[in-house]
Amino acid sequence: MRMTDIIEHKKQGLKLTGEEIEFFVKGYTKGDIPDYQASALAMAIYFNKMTNEETATLTLEMAKSGDMLDLSEFKNLTVDKHSSGGVGDKTTLVVAPIAAAAGCTVAKMSGRGLGFTGGTIDKLEAIPGFCTAMSPESFKNQARDIGLVVAGQTGNMAPCDKKLYALRDVTATVDCMPLIASSIMSKKLAAGAKNIVLDVKCGEGAFMKDIQSAALLASEMVNIGRHCQRNVRALITDMSCPLGYAVGNSLEVAEAIKILKGENIPRLTKLCIALAANMISLTKQVDLKEAENEAKEMIKSGKALEKLKEMVKAQGGDVSYIDDENKFGFDEYKTEIKAEKQGYISNIDAQKIGNICVILGAGRNVKTDSIDSKAGILLSCQKGDYINSGDTVMTLYSNDENKLKQAKELALNSFEISDKKPACNDIILKQL
Amino acid sequence: MRMTDIIEHKKQGLKLTGEEIEFFVKGYTKGDIPDYQASALAMAIYFNKMTNEETATLTLEMAKSGDMLDLSEFKNLTVDKHSSGGVGDKTTLVVAPIAAAAGCTVAKMSGRGLGFTGGTIDKLEAIPGFCTAMSPESFKNQARDIGLVVAGQTGNMAPCDKKLYALRDVTATVDCMPLIASSIMSKKLAAGAKNIVLDVKCGEGAFMKDIQSAALLASEMVNIGRHCQRNVRALITDMSCPLGYAVGNSLEVAEAIKILKGENIPRLTKLCIALAANMISLTKQVDLKEAENEAKEMIKSGKALEKLKEMVKAQGGDVSYIDDENKFGFDEYKTEIKAEKQGYISNIDAQKIGNICVILGAGRNVKTDSIDSKAGILLSCQKGDYINSGDTVMTLYSNDENKLKQAKELALNSFEISDKKPACNDIILKQL
Repeated sequence: MRMTDIIEHKKQGLKLTGEEIEFFVKGYTKGDIPDYQASALAMAIYFNKMTNEETATLTLEMAKSGDMLDLSEFKNLTVDKHSSGGVGDKTTLVVAPIAAAAGCTVAKMSGRGLGFTGGTIDKLEAIPGFCTAMSPESFKNQARDIGLVVAGQTGNMAPCDKKLYALRDVTATVDCMPLIASSIMSKKLAAGAKNIVLDVKCGEGAFMKDIQSAALLASEMVNIGRHCQRNVRALITDMSCPLGYAVGNSLEVAEAIKILKGENIPRLTKLCIALAANMISLTKQVDLKEAENEAKEMIKSGKALEKLKEMVKAQGGDVSYIDDENKFGFDEYKTEIKAEKQGYISNIDAQKIGNICVILGAGRNVKTDSIDSKAGILLSCQKGDYINSGDTVMTLYSNDENKLKQAKELALNSFEISDKKPACNDIILKQL
Repeated sequence: MRMTDIIEHKKQGLKLTGEEIEFFVKGYTKGDIPDYQASALAMAIYFNKMTNEETATLTLEMAKSGDMLDLSEFKNLTVDKHSSGGVGDKTTLVVAPIAAAAGCTVAKMSGRGLGFTGGTIDKLEAIPGFCTAMSPESFKNQARDIGLVVAGQTGNMAPCDKKLYALRDVTATVDCMPLIASSIMSKKLAAGAKNIVLDVKCGEGAFMKDIQSAALLASEMVNIGRHCQRNVRALITDMSCPLGYAVGNSLEVAEAIKILKGENIPRLTKLCIALAANMISLTKQVDLKEAENEAKEMIKSGKALEKLKEMVKAQGGDVSYIDDENKFGFDEYKTEIKAEKQGYISNIDAQKIGNICVILGAGRNVKTDSIDSKAGILLSCQKGDYINSGDTVMTLYSNDENKLKQAKELALNSFEISDKKPACNDIILKQL
């Protein structure tokens, strides 16, 4: 088999065989197939697409290119959740404990963030003492003991995807649906869960700007799951505005704890319940309405909060921060951004808020940047709220006065006030 | 400027700017732009094509990526001729002396062959003592002195094309019209002639299998010339059967000499006159019919043969071989292929004849192969001829009995005999 022929076949619009895809993934992972052939193939895939079967085969082969976490001892009870990334998205911190409290096994590997705020791992590390680096053994032990573990990636997961992703980034082949879907799902397959709930973000603050592309991506991923014997559901959710009031690592952990304590935060609580309900329904094979009630009950009864505390304790974190989320505190320097006129908040630009958080120190520009866990933005209102002139719209926190000054300029242009009450998208746009 | 953006623009179907193309060619030649970005761009060009202007800019930039031969001292009298490669194509050996005898300046750089038989340089080296390696100075001196010089490439011509061509070969991006056209023309532009006549071969024995693709390639090249202030004409000519009776290096030189001595070889003589007439007409700005008469007169008067002898002498070759072409002789071993039945020769497969010549030792499989100048095939008939059972169809020559044996097997299947007289394509299919 020759790589040139494989590229030629895709260029001609033919369906690649399983052997051809395996040949490419193995050869590329090993370094036998050079980058210049992989990039030509990626571009041919961009133009001629892939069938569901090809995409699924590519995904499975990429998953198999490295370590595969074996969670088979947990039978069909394992559940994973993936978000395509949003501003203020702290849902994992809420839904993982809910699902675990409801009897699912949540053994989840999460990533660090690049751009905007941190990833789930960065957020968890805002809890003093919390350890996210675990061996596969202790990871599985904890899943066995308490049914809930969230840690950083262990071992060498989907190295082919890592290589291909980096290559696509510099060859203008990022925006290719089968390649986006297989990239995400190869890591999910390698992470071993039988049930997977996907939160595909859609809107200005997300990678998918419109609902059509978000739906396409979601359906590609659901199809991959179907081909690979995983149960997958996808929710397409609105990311035009930040999720909740808090954006920034410790700020978001505190907000997540509030939800687990029963606070109803507009849109965010609804999204958490929906995600948790889907996780429970998929894993326990129960009706969605029933699962939703169970998710709510896990909050009401305090069982979900208890489960979070179990996890924090097991991973060495200071549980007193969960009992009293005010302990997280804020950075030394702060600035309040005030409304210059009265009216309705007609927009809070998620992308701008994300970028401001990076400036404040809550996110990364490059992988090696360190994160200031107490930096971030606390919104005082949400889209659709009516405010008076002089009211605080948001408060910025940083440990660096210069960063704060720079961020303030941008913050003044990150929201809009209008005389007319704006139409607000439902947080859940579509479910697959 | 970033290469990723340039790839993205072409991927989106946008027209690349002159600056973008220059950035790519300079960066790729220098090694600043890696192969994986160049191959992604090539694949995007395959799918989204290039405008005439883009193709011309790419060609000129590739020409400028290395040494440009300066022939400006010869004003508008320089003429070059390019053939896209065929089996038995010895036309350069005929038309260059005719055009030079008619007053054009033919200062031509030619290549060695890969596959089939040798290139013009390999053929010329069949003349004992003939030197094809010349400095740019002696190359120009000879052009000045006698108006005719044919040598191997001097210096570093179009290195970007060389690099890109090798890359396209292993990334399934060879069959892309703008890239094929710019590859050929970049070397022609660098070679410096003001007037260029292209012989685009079409048919089973050629890279372009049908007249549509041949015409497309021809028009791309004519357009490039127009954009780059060169006068270009293209002839699309039939390459379903070998050109003339001789295939193999010294065999072909001998046949070329016969034409210059006035022999009328079906199809081949006609093609030579047409090419030479176009070279003369383009260069001297005269009517094609007038140029054709002049080309014929150069043969009839012996002036073209005399010009060839001047060149051979100037480049150190043994002129007695031109006076008596029988001196070239043949390889030690030979086999005659006989007709097993009577009828019309309905096909002689150019591609098969070419492949057989490689086996006999007359062509190369890889660049480093050496060539046996006396190996080859002498046909005894042409397509459309009537032959009797037992008549010789062709004679194979080699210096190796085993090669001869292997070639004989294939030769038996390289032609067809039919009861019906076949239709024969005119040698000249189209002129642009």
